[in-house]
Amino acid sequence: MDRSAPIGVFDSGIGGLTVVRELVKQLPNESILYFGDTARVPYGPKSPDTVLRYSREIVAFLRSQGVKAIVVACNTATAHALPALREENDLPIIGVIEPGARAAAAATRTKRVGVIGTAGTVKSAAYEKEIKRLLPDAFVFSQACPLFVPLIEEGWMDEDPTRLIAERYLTPVAEANTDAVVLGCTHYPLLKSVIGRVVGRDVRLIDSAEETARETAGTLRSNNLDAERADQACYRFIASDAPETFLRVGQRFLGSSIDRVETVTLG
Amino acid sequence: MDRSAPIGVFDSGIGGLTVVRELVKQLPNESILYFGDTARVPYGPKSPDTVLRYSREIVAFLRSQGVKAIVVACNTATAHALPALREENDLPIIGVIEPGARAAAAATRTKRVGVIGTAGTVKSAAYEKEIKRLLPDAFVFSQACPLFVPLIEEGWMDEDPTRLIAERYLTPVAEANTDAVVLGCTHYPLLKSVIGRVVGRDVRLIDSAEETARETAGTLRSNNLDAERADQACYRFIASDAPETFLRVGQRFLGSSIDRVETVTLG
Repeated sequence: MDRSAPIGVFDSGIGGLTVVRELVKQLPNESILYFGDTARVPYGPKSPDTVLRYSREIVAFLRSQGVKAIVVACNTATAHALPALREENDLPIIGVIEPGARAAAAATRTKRVGVIGTAGTVKSAAYEKEIKRLLPDAFVFSQACPLFVPLIEEGWMDEDPTRLIAERYLTPVAEANTDAVVLGCTHYPLLKSVIGRVVGRDVRLIDSAEETARETAGTLRSNNLDAERADQACYRFIASDAPETFLRVGQRFLGSSIDRVETVTLG
Repeated sequence: MDRSAPIGVFDSGIGGLTVVRELVKQLPNESILYFGDTARVPYGPKSPDTVLRYSREIVAFLRSQGVKAIVVACNTATAHALPALREENDLPIIGVIEPGARAAAAATRTKRVGVIGTAGTVKSAAYEKEIKRLLPDAFVFSQACPLFVPLIEEGWMDEDPTRLIAERYLTPVAEANTDAVVLGCTHYPLLKSVIGRVVGRDVRLIDSAEETARETAGTLRSNNLDAERADQACYRFIASDAPETFLRVGQRFLGSSIDRVETVTLG
């Protein structure tokens, strides 16, 4: 495998760009090929079988483009598809749940951890299982927040309705006396300040993106796949639908501008 | 064509069941085959090309099941796909926009009409064009309300955040002095009371479902396709994903219970 090949990163839409942002920061030599499945977003409310089918199609596409490793930058896809994807493919595949769970297990002092995510991620209990594997006597309180993604996509990051909805969803998480809360959806880092105000300033918010980028770095190194040359990194962004919206909204997630978005139809 | 064949009805998800409800009421002899594309919901933010592709796949499926006519019970699909679907198929196809626009044109006294819908429906300006065809000097004020569908699917029909968000979206509609507002999304009839309180009790809310059922009745009669025998009607519900959610949430839309939901994968 060519060490200068890009890392493939995919998500149901644009949320995974928060992971790309960290990858660019931590791995400046690596090229990235990002696929956002905007034609079929959101994955959160969909069944495990459907999310697995979509993930397989995307992995086949990314492999056809010659990626050397794949980051599943979507919590729902990680929850429903990661084991099967690893079984079926002979290249390193990194998900967002193991790194996030590890960071939460390291951060909690009271062993009381909150997890917030989409309906699919919460129902899968993937974070809960992983945190309890690391900390068998941990108490994990999970809460689905299905309106957070539409609110973020509407651009209402710090508006009255967003604060009111965050209170509805997160008051039970705060009342469960958790001291670390996993942002179990790649969109949620954009709501960090609203979420922080509801759960309280002394609660650590765990953003999987950072830890996922760290795990990707380690995996590339140990597989002898890390890019050797500097100043060669290039970034490609592909969406399955509505590239203009991707271009416009993506900037909020990536923290820098996107020049061009290609469109590829799957399924 | 067999007059006892079912009418095919489709939507991006469960919203179209508000149209089925009216069809059952007005056309008790007709059988209905409903397809909800829950694997790819929502259509609202997606591009016209993608919505057209999805609509073609569903129409091909419904035809393979022997339907005698098709009701596009989704505003976004009607806006983006109806002309092409009519061109390509030799059976009657009824959309929700023409009937809704006609009802609005009949209801307004001041010729100032509001239209609320998904981003896709509003961007298409399909209602505005149709209303102005009927009332050339009408003033049409359109407003996208992207959070209404997620709020309804969360079951928050009359909660504080819903009222607050309705005020944000609808105050400009009220201030435009409209005297009729088209509920340009099949989900919105479930928010009728909240919407009514914001726009004011003297504003007529136009629910396309009723008018669409009336147009369907007329079309079947004029094509000699109306079912002749009573007590033979049967209803089939098919979803492309997550039939349990369809079963549970669908009742709210249909106003009566659903016994069974089949699953069919498209695309």
